[in-house]
Amino acid sequence: MSAQPNVLLLVPPGWGGLWQTPLSIGGLKVFAHGVDAFDPATIDYAVGFRPPPGLLASLPRLKAVFSLGAGVDGFLLDPQFPKHIPLIRFVDVTLSREMAQYAAMHVLMQHRTVNFFEAAQRDGKWRQRMLPRATEETRVGILGLGEIGTVCAERIRDHGFSVSGWSRTRKHVDGVKSYAGAGELDAFLAQCDFLVCVLPLTPDTRHILNAAAFAKLPKGAYVINIARGGHLNEPDLIAAIDSGHLSGATLDVFETEPLPEGNPIWSHPKIIATPHIAAITHPSAATRSIIDGIAALERGHAPKNVVDMTRGY
Amino acid sequence: MSAQPNVLLLVPPGWGGLWQTPLSIGGLKVFAHGVDAFDPATIDYAVGFRPPPGLLASLPRLKAVFSLGAGVDGFLLDPQFPKHIPLIRFVDVTLSREMAQYAAMHVLMQHRTVNFFEAAQRDGKWRQRMLPRATEETRVGILGLGEIGTVCAERIRDHGFSVSGWSRTRKHVDGVKSYAGAGELDAFLAQCDFLVCVLPLTPDTRHILNAAAFAKLPKGAYVINIARGGHLNEPDLIAAIDSGHLSGATLDVFETEPLPEGNPIWSHPKIIATPHIAAITHPSAATRSIIDGIAALERGHAPKNVVDMTRGY
Repeated sequence: MSAQPNVLLLVPPGWGGLWQTPLSIGGLKVFAHGVDAFDPATIDYAVGFRPPPGLLASLPRLKAVFSLGAGVDGFLLDPQFPKHIPLIRFVDVTLSREMAQYAAMHVLMQHRTVNFFEAAQRDGKWRQRMLPRATEETRVGILGLGEIGTVCAERIRDHGFSVSGWSRTRKHVDGVKSYAGAGELDAFLAQCDFLVCVLPLTPDTRHILNAAAFAKLPKGAYVINIARGGHLNEPDLIAAIDSGHLSGATLDVFETEPLPEGNPIWSHPKIIATPHIAAITHPSAATRSIIDGIAALERGHAPKNVVDMTRGY
Repeated sequence: MSAQPNVLLLVPPGWGGLWQTPLSIGGLKVFAHGVDAFDPATIDYAVGFRPPPGLLASLPRLKAVFSLGAGVDGFLLDPQFPKHIPLIRFVDVTLSREMAQYAAMHVLMQHRTVNFFEAAQRDGKWRQRMLPRATEETRVGILGLGEIGTVCAERIRDHGFSVSGWSRTRKHVDGVKSYAGAGELDAFLAQCDFLVCVLPLTPDTRHILNAAAFAKLPKGAYVINIARGGHLNEPDLIAAIDSGHLSGATLDVFETEPLPEGNPIWSHPKIIATPHIAAITHPSAATRSIIDGIAALERGHAPKNVVDMTRGY
């Protein structure tokens, strides 16, 4: 056991400070990749989001990798990722809570026609109108009914919507209809007035939101993607909206991030685009979880929340 | 018992059609006030929102009055309201559900800084930022913890906020701190980062949201009024926002409705104004409830949801 384990921190430029101090206070020796010099032979743990391909394979003493996000696709894209090392997902109540806030808020903003009333206020006009569709007749489908998807489903269900979920295996969530497996995907899509994607990104789910899937949705359906940009074929989405089949979309994630200036998504009148902020990992929660996780590993305990490399999540 | 009870319908011009047909199908003879001729001596029931003062007192056979809204202040403003006649509130799951949707959505829109990300999208810029305040550290106070306030509190609580409520008498709602009575109002206000008003409007609660109350709120607090315009002193609110003490407000109700064109609230950059649509009484739910209520009264049953004339709600 190292007296003070050495940790390599992999976060975007400028974000290191948020993490380095609390991890150091927690008894870890932290090297920020791209900032601090470090000896690859001495690194015990890697912590972060998206390592440069090959980097982790070059660390001979690496004992475990901690993802700072719920999704680990950024690690699995590295063809040299050392698959014998445990890759540990960040599981935290604040992550699923914030994802569910974002999902419920954007469903409600469309359901309650916030845009219509904003325009009325800009015009200074009193324009009452009823809901276009009763809440209990509005069907919200959650694509991915895991830790995060379940909380999204519960929060939206509690607002009175008719909620279903789709996942690889059958799930049991009170008041939420479960569709499972590839064989039930079309039936699931056919009954989604709102489709909220919170799937993990794996080779199986890449571009699952494409022209064929959009065609299965009811006319006027609205798409919300808060999972990964790789789930959604962006030109297919724009075409399905511009044809009038879909009523619009809210996107928090994109094929290329940051979404490039000039990308047509920025200015599309029926797309709300936000910069991957549906849930932001809180340094206080995450550093606590990493410090505790490393301490447990150093005492010889089995790691928790380890990614299944076969499933990819 | 009348074979077919005669009902006087009191709704704004143009809205009668929504109600007249379903009530007629339910076996009632309906006269729309201002449209149909009727003999005051033959009216058994009145149904609607806001009778012209003195009208109800002129109906000698009146057996009960059904409000189409949860609030009955529009009836009690009539100095000649016949107080010996039961006044029946509309209590319906869709009303409290829609009020809670509106309250939760507007709390979330501020909490999640929707405006900031809308501006970033207009500029076509990727501007990430964290939440200004962690959800569990954000305190939401519900002014009025009755049927509707309780559902608002539960929905907002489930999104992870720290929720309290204030009411005339002590209430017990899981995970919601109860403040009760005039003596605890200041302590309640002092801990509200968001203040959501869902009180009934009575002489005791008129202008409860005034300069003195706003001064008790923490700096940066945000006010949401979905009860009645009469609860809030509008010039005091604007002064408290313009001084920088409050961060803004969302108002669905106003002293004068429709909010007049040119009123400064329409164009205030820190006020969201909507035209009394937080919950819209659904004709299908309400007509069912009225048809059943009249049938029960005609069979001699005691009426349900009768307003306590002493409390005024």
